[in-house]
Amino acid sequence: MNQKSALIVSAHSADFVWRAGGAAALYAERGWRVHILCLSFGERGESAKLWKQADMSLETVKRIRRDESEQAAAILGASISFLDCGDYPLRVGDEALFKIVDAYRQLRPEFVLTHSFKDPYNFDHPLANHLALEARIIAQAHGHNPAEPVIGAPPVFLFEPHQPEQCEWKPETFLDISPVWEKKYRAFQIMGAQEHLWEYYTRAGLQRGAQASRNSSKNIKYAEAFQCVYPRVADDLL
Amino acid sequence: MNQKSALIVSAHSADFVWRAGGAAALYAERGWRVHILCLSFGERGESAKLWKQADMSLETVKRIRRDESEQAAAILGASISFLDCGDYPLRVGDEALFKIVDAYRQLRPEFVLTHSFKDPYNFDHPLANHLALEARIIAQAHGHNPAEPVIGAPPVFLFEPHQPEQCEWKPETFLDISPVWEKKYRAFQIMGAQEHLWEYYTRAGLQRGAQASRNSSKNIKYAEAFQCVYPRVADDLL
Amino acid sequence: MNQKSALIVSAHSADFVWRAGGAAALYAERGWRVHILCLSFGERGESAKLWKQADMSLETVKRIRRDESEQAAAILGASISFLDCGDYPLRVGDEALFKIVDAYRQLRPEFVLTHSFKDPYNFDHPLANHLALEARIIAQAHGHNPAEPVIGAPPVFLFEPHQPEQCEWKPETFLDISPVWEKKYRAFQIMGAQEHLWEYYTRAGLQRGAQASRNSSKNIKYAEAFQCVYPRVADDLL
Amino acid sequence: MNQKSALIVSAHSADFVWRAGGAAALYAERGWRVHILCLSFGERGESAKLWKQADMSLETVKRIRRDESEQAAAILGASISFLDCGDYPLRVGDEALFKIVDAYRQLRPEFVLTHSFKDPYNFDHPLANHLALEARIIAQAHGHNPAEPVIGAPPVFLFEPHQPEQCEWKPETFLDISPVWEKKYRAFQIMGAQEHLWEYYTRAGLQRGAQASRNSSKNIKYAEAFQCVYPRVADDLL
Amino acid sequence: MNQKSALIVSAHSADFVWRAGGAAALYAERGWRVHILCLSFGERGESAKLWKQADMSLETVKRIRRDESEQAAAILGASISFLDCGDYPLRVGDEALFKIVDAYRQLRPEFVLTHSFKDPYNFDHPLANHLALEARIIAQAHGHNPAEPVIGAPPVFLFEPHQPEQCEWKPETFLDISPVWEKKYRAFQIMGAQEHLWEYYTRAGLQRGAQASRNSSKNIKYAEAFQCVYPRVADDLL
Amino acid sequence: MNQKSALIVSAHSADFVWRAGGAAALYAERGWRVHILCLSFGERGESAKLWKQADMSLETVKRIRRDESEQAAAILGASISFLDCGDYPLRVGDEALFKIVDAYRQLRPEFVLTHSFKDPYNFDHPLANHLALEARIIAQAHGHNPAEPVIGAPPVFLFEPHQPEQCEWKPETFLDISPVWEKKYRAFQIMGAQEHLWEYYTRAGLQRGAQASRNSSKNIKYAEAFQCVYPRVADDLL
Repeated sequence: MNQKSALIVSAHSADFVWRAGGAAALYAERGWRVHILCLSFGERGESAKLWKQADMSLETVKRIRRDESEQAAAILGASISFLDCGDYPLRVGDEALFKIVDAYRQLRPEFVLTHSFKDPYNFDHPLANHLALEARIIAQAHGHNPAEPVIGAPPVFLFEPHQPEQCEWKPETFLDISPVWEKKYRAFQIMGAQEHLWEYYTRAGLQRGAQASRNSSKNIKYAEAFQCVYPRVADDLL
Repeated sequence: MNQKSALIVSAHSADFVWRAGGAAALYAERGWRVHILCLSFGERGESAKLWKQADMSLETVKRIRRDESEQAAAILGASISFLDCGDYPLRVGDEALFKIVDAYRQLRPEFVLTHSFKDPYNFDHPLANHLALEARIIAQAHGHNPAEPVIGAPPVFLFEPHQPEQCEWKPETFLDISPVWEKKYRAFQIMGAQEHLWEYYTRAGLQRGAQASRNSSKNIKYAEAFQCVYPRVADDLL
Repeated sequence: MNQKSALIVSAHSADFVWRAGGAAALYAERGWRVHILCLSFGERGESAKLWKQADMSLETVKRIRRDESEQAAAILGASISFLDCGDYPLRVGDEALFKIVDAYRQLRPEFVLTHSFKDPYNFDHPLANHLALEARIIAQAHGHNPAEPVIGAPPVFLFEPHQPEQCEWKPETFLDISPVWEKKYRAFQIMGAQEHLWEYYTRAGLQRGAQASRNSSKNIKYAEAFQCVYPRVADDLL
Repeated sequence: MNQKSALIVSAHSADFVWRAGGAAALYAERGWRVHILCLSFGERGESAKLWKQADMSLETVKRIRRDESEQAAAILGASISFLDCGDYPLRVGDEALFKIVDAYRQLRPEFVLTHSFKDPYNFDHPLANHLALEARIIAQAHGHNPAEPVIGAPPVFLFEPHQPEQCEWKPETFLDISPVWEKKYRAFQIMGAQEHLWEYYTRAGLQRGAQASRNSSKNIKYAEAFQCVYPRVADDLL
Repeated sequence: MNQKSALIVSAHSADFVWRAGGAAALYAERGWRVHILCLSFGERGESAKLWKQADMSLETVKRIRRDESEQAAAILGASISFLDCGDYPLRVGDEALFKIVDAYRQLRPEFVLTHSFKDPYNFDHPLANHLALEARIIAQAHGHNPAEPVIGAPPVFLFEPHQPEQCEWKPETFLDISPVWEKKYRAFQIMGAQEHLWEYYTRAGLQRGAQASRNSSKNIKYAEAFQCVYPRVADDLL
Repeated sequence: MNQKSALIVSAHSADFVWRAGGAAALYAERGWRVHILCLSFGERGESAKLWKQADMSLETVKRIRRDESEQAAAILGASISFLDCGDYPLRVGDEALFKIVDAYRQLRPEFVLTHSFKDPYNFDHPLANHLALEARIIAQAHGHNPAEPVIGAPPVFLFEPHQPEQCEWKPETFLDISPVWEKKYRAFQIMGAQEHLWEYYTRAGLQRGAQASRNSSKNIKYAEAFQCVYPRVADDLL
């Protein structure tokens, strides 16, 4: 079958919801296979609400976060897997790196979404960026597992960090996610440990929508914004 | 009629040939109206060969340059007009600026091509960039000639300067111009005063083609590269 | 009297409302004289709604915009004056520049607020920035109107542009404007020609508030963000 | 007791003297606890004079450097501890990283001082920067040693590297250290292995003082300069 | 005669002393013709001490500044001329620009020294930079005064601004000026209106000397630092 | 003996050919010892053609690549050694780092050539850059192998990456390699696995030659371009 696919490399198990949930749902609705690879459950750094409960353990936090992420991915129409590499700090050795390479080779994605190059508030995010790019390069090398076919050159887009200007991240592509906004917001609601972010990222979606409208003369309510790592190659400038 | 159009704002009368001749020819072949607006004939700075002839006058140089540019535009399938604002230095007052605004309002281009933001070798180029962007903004204002319909928000792409790295210009979109390369090279050959550039820009086209191939898994022989001024708004990331 | 003062240099007559209305109201409540200097009424570029009315004239638009701005300034507790230098394009000669210098010399502001260095969507904004900085430098020169006392070195803060990342503008100081938010929003409501911006800048205030909270462990609902032009000189790092 | 505290993360055992000795002494005089955490003794890279002595051993160099650093810290009124992670190259594993996290949790500093993001002359410096920031982030995570209270969001300031422009470091805050200059200079004089730096950093203090004066209309003789990592959150712009 | 020459384009009549006095003296000692072109006398912005005298007039300030500059140039072994274009603000029309072009064509300099690209403390400096570069480009054009021979491509070096990091200026070449330091300091002493700068620029010379030593293993006491506008073309990398 | 030497740190065994073959041959012809240190054979990422052969093994690829590199180095007149640290990904521990330090101490190079700071297409390249710079710093430290003499401060130049603008690499020095071009092209022809690069880097040499000509008024056919890591210290600005 010729189902097209996309790969989302997410540092923690909720990043993909806030930052790329619209793109995931949009392409899933178009019949693509959208796969989310979570390097960590975010069990230390993004689960404050859980840790405030009595008798909480690392395993319990990880299990709850996994459950939430799987539910959110299901709402978006995406598949999901976890590398469980820890967070705060995330630490990824070559063995885990090669699993990301395997994901590239198996999915053969048309495009990849991941974190920004810099984030002074969260060092796991630029590390995820580095791993996603490094794995892509290795997956292109004929000498890595030579029996497997290499991949081409899928474009990589960097989704929006929490404080964009501090991360030197710049919106270069706006994607209209209005048709799937409801799904994205339902996925938000699954992430019970981070309720304070629901409205933050709703407003972010509306601001990007207004900006997308201004850059296009279209009328766009909700948008997601992405920075491009590599130049676009196209038959059409538009 | 619903013919689409594109606008090229060129500082000197040959810039559009080297830097955007492929894009012009490609869209012209697709049935678009491609219009080139030359701010200057390049009569002082880009006509060294002519000035080495005996008894040369400014008017003669301008006439020859105009003739060449009209021929080159015809080969590319584009229309062309001239503002004759001088070069080395180019000096453009508000009257000429409003003529560029008029061009925006009359053409209503789907996209605009112009020079890079910086060029330490040629100050007319960043000035052309500034004028092209400023005119676009004025053409969007309801209060400028209120009887006329305003324009939307056409994307602006910056074509390749002569020494890209020195101009802090970066390729962000590659356009495959292989199908129209022969036309572009024929347009080169019209520019008799700048023969030394024919091979320079042939090699540039081949290098950009090789880079476009590497960024896409396609096999592209000749490409033109462009930097994007504004974010892209799209239904598709690719 | 020793009333302290602040100066806001606004390109168009509504910019100060969206971008610095909170700072204006906050310092006015503290007993400062806050003066807004509008270089233009924004009569061409920011008055689309007015121009859609029948029989509108430039003078009527300017009058309406002046009225609105005076009302908004009054709500914020600030004084306001206008240089009427036109917009789209704003054009400011040395005579008008020296009026800005006069404002510096008369007000002797403790700080200055103005536009970002760059804005590819609005060239009047970086021009206002340039004029505000150039006038400040001239006001420091002993040889300019030597009979007048020169000013010191008031810090300059750049308020938030409409699309921050595209303007290479970065938040470096967050000011908690929650106590005066209601005034700022009432000033929004005066600007009838730009109703679409009310919610946009409400959300901007909330996003900056959330970011200010995260950068301080305080609980801040609404904030304005500013970039700093000059280094801060202080007795305390905090 | 409610003694406020500050943390200085210094790559080598003398960096804090040249780069932050004034800030340390100033806050110590104000009654703060100022703690210096040295990642290395600088026993290889900053002890040329010692290594020129006969029969010198690594342990002796480290002991002498420790003694000097303790004396210098005492003059400045600060406490000091050492992680002894080696230098040229400094190598810090997660165990040592968690000790820095512990320092954050125990001190609960109001602000942190450390090295610049880049330094092409000394790779231990940007590594110290990275560790200081990464430890701060981990100390904020509820899931790291969940029994301990997390810290807030202390601002981080980057002190001046040896060749500022080559390190892409920019002064954003000037601190007047004239009142404690004599202490800083006495601390210089302890560092016998680096006598050539006494005058270099005296001149640096005077240049920064002159610049601080020019940016403030104050009369400041000696200053230290700092770059800011995070935006400032304040009730006052000044 | 084959005397080589160098051109210094100085915004105000003392800039060349502080920023390029060493280079001027060094090349003059080597038998070069070093010519200083002052766009302004600095009569408004750099003559505070004079304006504090009773009954001072603009003409008197200009005369005194001209006298001082001529004396300083003589000490350095350089010739000097003035365009008298005003300062604070400096305003240079095309007529004056063409005089700078004439200087290029007459001197045919081996290299050019001028101000930095940016300076938020002094807008005359980046304007001088722009004019020096624009005049160089025009002087290269065959169509500008076609009867005159065009110039080649002399390298342009940007001398040190007062607050280097704030001007985004970076030292890329250090020139050992120790052999002529005494002359440079004597030229300082001529500039009576700016006595506060004597020690500032002495320390700057020592700091750059120390940095030059560290980047070369040489022992250099005083240096001047320059940023390069264009790439170097050489037979030798060193 | 007083033979001068230069060091080239090459990530993969062919990088030095494309990027620094001209500089190597030029200095070898001048009687210098030019030594190439290859961190990897490029056996995975740059040997696609070999891996398409039946029954290929990693050892065979490495042997062939070593042979080719030795032949290419011999043509250029350089010596070569290999650290065999793997590629895609290159992984270099401190033991290998200290071998690079040893190379610095033994060769005592006048200058060093290596890769760019960034390369989003090849992460081994910036790692090689980092190692080359870090080893240089360690080689300068008196406390590293104290019995050995330390090195001075050799300048480091970054040779041209495959897609220069994407790597934020900028040509700052052009070296005329026309006299040794034939040797460089013969070295190209040894690299049988990368035939598609022969013409690419021939065109690159011609483009850089044309640019070198334009920046110098010389007539240069082939050039190599380099970015400078450290400031130049010189007796002459040219």
